[in-house]
Amino acid sequence: MDTSTTTQVIGEIIGTLILVLLGDGVVAGVSLRKSKAEGAGWVAITLGWGAGVTIGAYAAGYMSFAHLNPAVTIGMAIAGNIGWNMVVPYILGQMIGAILGAILLYIHYYPHWKETEDPAAILGTFATGPAIRSLGANLISEIIGTFMLVFALLAFGMNKFGEGLNPIAVGILILVIGLSLGGTTGYAINPARDLGPRLAHAFLPIPNKGDSDWGYAWVPVLGPIIGGSLAALLFMALPI
Amino acid sequence: MDTSTTTQVIGEIIGTLILVLLGDGVVAGVSLRKSKAEGAGWVAITLGWGAGVTIGAYAAGYMSFAHLNPAVTIGMAIAGNIGWNMVVPYILGQMIGAILGAILLYIHYYPHWKETEDPAAILGTFATGPAIRSLGANLISEIIGTFMLVFALLAFGMNKFGEGLNPIAVGILILVIGLSLGGTTGYAINPARDLGPRLAHAFLPIPNKGDSDWGYAWVPVLGPIIGGSLAALLFMALPI
Amino acid sequence: MDTSTTTQVIGEIIGTLILVLLGDGVVAGVSLRKSKAEGAGWVAITLGWGAGVTIGAYAAGYMSFAHLNPAVTIGMAIAGNIGWNMVVPYILGQMIGAILGAILLYIHYYPHWKETEDPAAILGTFATGPAIRSLGANLISEIIGTFMLVFALLAFGMNKFGEGLNPIAVGILILVIGLSLGGTTGYAINPARDLGPRLAHAFLPIPNKGDSDWGYAWVPVLGPIIGGSLAALLFMALPI
Amino acid sequence: MDTSTTTQVIGEIIGTLILVLLGDGVVAGVSLRKSKAEGAGWVAITLGWGAGVTIGAYAAGYMSFAHLNPAVTIGMAIAGNIGWNMVVPYILGQMIGAILGAILLYIHYYPHWKETEDPAAILGTFATGPAIRSLGANLISEIIGTFMLVFALLAFGMNKFGEGLNPIAVGILILVIGLSLGGTTGYAINPARDLGPRLAHAFLPIPNKGDSDWGYAWVPVLGPIIGGSLAALLFMALPI
Repeated sequence: MDTSTTTQVIGEIIGTLILVLLGDGVVAGVSLRKSKAEGAGWVAITLGWGAGVTIGAYAAGYMSFAHLNPAVTIGMAIAGNIGWNMVVPYILGQMIGAILGAILLYIHYYPHWKETEDPAAILGTFATGPAIRSLGANLISEIIGTFMLVFALLAFGMNKFGEGLNPIAVGILILVIGLSLGGTTGYAINPARDLGPRLAHAFLPIPNKGDSDWGYAWVPVLGPIIGGSLAALLFMALPI
Repeated sequence: MDTSTTTQVIGEIIGTLILVLLGDGVVAGVSLRKSKAEGAGWVAITLGWGAGVTIGAYAAGYMSFAHLNPAVTIGMAIAGNIGWNMVVPYILGQMIGAILGAILLYIHYYPHWKETEDPAAILGTFATGPAIRSLGANLISEIIGTFMLVFALLAFGMNKFGEGLNPIAVGILILVIGLSLGGTTGYAINPARDLGPRLAHAFLPIPNKGDSDWGYAWVPVLGPIIGGSLAALLFMALPI
Repeated sequence: MDTSTTTQVIGEIIGTLILVLLGDGVVAGVSLRKSKAEGAGWVAITLGWGAGVTIGAYAAGYMSFAHLNPAVTIGMAIAGNIGWNMVVPYILGQMIGAILGAILLYIHYYPHWKETEDPAAILGTFATGPAIRSLGANLISEIIGTFMLVFALLAFGMNKFGEGLNPIAVGILILVIGLSLGGTTGYAINPARDLGPRLAHAFLPIPNKGDSDWGYAWVPVLGPIIGGSLAALLFMALPI
Repeated sequence: MDTSTTTQVIGEIIGTLILVLLGDGVVAGVSLRKSKAEGAGWVAITLGWGAGVTIGAYAAGYMSFAHLNPAVTIGMAIAGNIGWNMVVPYILGQMIGAILGAILLYIHYYPHWKETEDPAAILGTFATGPAIRSLGANLISEIIGTFMLVFALLAFGMNKFGEGLNPIAVGILILVIGLSLGGTTGYAINPARDLGPRLAHAFLPIPNKGDSDWGYAWVPVLGPIIGGSLAALLFMALPI
């Protein structure tokens, strides 16, 4: 990547903004009252997240490495695919993008917040929460999900892809992580994707909102960082 | 594009005809009484629209730029990807194609109109309408949805695609805009796609039809034009 | 295509067998009692048909043109893409493959026929039927659906595709024809796909089966042939 | 494949681990109580299996042939695409990967086993079972399903694929086998995918689990081996 740090950070901001707007957008569409997508279910949510990450990757990919995810950035730094000096700028860009995406989401669904009286549904459109609250088990789920993500991305790097195909493969990966591993914690697998919109949930004037569940917020931050780091370490330890 | 204006306009007519026939077709299939697809839900609708645009893009793409959408044409003109002299011919072709597509839709589902007694369901197979009527918010939703569309298409233009892959990426984009941003207004994101079939709804002798909701018709025309224009302006302002 | 006629016919047999086994298979899975896919709905059916045609096209494509459909073969002959001398061998291969596919389907779902007491559901796993019986309108639906199919295939021929991508695009086309135009008649859009399995339904010893609805059988034969021929004629008339 | 046997076996272990974790994972997500994916249905299950095999194939494919399935390995040995000396190492790797994948699955969904009181649902997340128990018919279903799988994979080998596209085509194949042929027995079509997790089910301390249905366990082992072998023999007998 020979583009400047500024360009790369802009790429991460834009790509993560799109990832959150489209990813959280499908949750909002399915969860908020009176939305035309209301009740469309888990297939809709996982398709939306998968395709949303694909589009985010296309939008960022000619400017940055399109990590769009601090756990990916840290994993890639451990694996030597990006310099450690880029980790903080990337994560800053990802956090800015995630917060901006959540603000746009709030604007886009503006009339629907008032109609939705369940604070849990509203929080769920911004940040993840556990199906069964058990912080140790939830943390392990996030570790496994993100391990899967970063390990597969590193394996993708060993494959060759025809021009423009890689973001589609990444979308398939996000789709299947959601379908197969998302049922436990809602697959944050990305600290920025969870923390950024949770902050937005806290400061935006959303009708009917409840608290932002800060007691859980560390799980989808720490779990992905651990999972992504372990994936990079194991991948490098493979005798290949 | 070195083909003649006539060829390009034919491409836009055919592609937009297919886009409307297949896109509005899936809404008809899901909404009209006694259709085998009745009740198939939002995933069906968004898959149908996404795949329909992919097919429209293949059908038009060897003749024109396959915009199939006045908001895209205007955005591309602002971004300098097409000459301003082509804007009016393209939009004319798109409007003609959209109207012809809606007429074909009417013929295809002919026995089902009589069985469908809800005028809103009938109008909904031709034109979009808001989930919660709030014209300002609806306009903003259409602006955001079309911004996403045109911004992503401009970003696609910065990526390279293997032969034949671009229309599939465009279909994924339409799919996710529908899943993630469509719940508010039904994602017109295309003035021709909405206005053309709405005109057809007004003049076709459809049993059980109600009025064509002209009070809303300006929203899915103006919103996409604003959103597409803003996307092009912002994209060009990026310091890259 | 420089392979021998025998090889091409084998390709058509195998590809159409797979098309019918997988296509009718998903209808059986969704419709037959006690199947694990029971009630999976229209999205499942259209995804299964789309992907089934993709696989049929891969399986046949290195041996024949992978038409797998007499309406496509006739349309391609009109368009000059295949010699008229190949039309009868191709259609024979397609009919043989369709009948063999239906026999395999019968064997695969063997214990489920006895559990399924609705003769219409059983016939529906072999052959198509109208949502609203109105033979003129049904014929027009099949004409429009097959017109769409053959027109798009001819347009595909004007695009370039990366290696191995064409069958995926064809699958997307079948998916969207099902989603968007299939609600009226169940989208036969292929005389062999309908007539072959209908014959198998007539002669196989299926428990609980009713009659094979021969009064309708001409519609999904004649409609697709008309639609495919019109598509080829119109495509050739385009001033491009 | 010029990589060492060790590397290839590592590839099979990793790929099959991923295949089982993601494939059985989607069944767990849809079946286990309180999962966010609970009740997401057959489309979710078949999409998850299809995409899971795609990811497994990417993860293994730069190390091994990515068979991830003893029936595929045996079929490929019969077809001459891999040496017979590799069959035992490959199958060992596949079995190890499948067991490890099932253990990870158990950990990932840890709090959900206690909430799920139906032993059949729990066994179903590890191993397949018949919709209608009729061992002869079930065996034939597994033979046909795996015949389809291996025959199509051999046909894929006759096609050319752009870089990175083959695993996506394989995913489409797994998707459609599930949709179209999976309703009878849950489409094991892979002895390791069924036997490995069944062993894990037997030895893991899963709350509420019942017996591991060893009386059925031979069907999804023998059926796929027969089906894969027949596919290879027939493919080689084709006069092409």
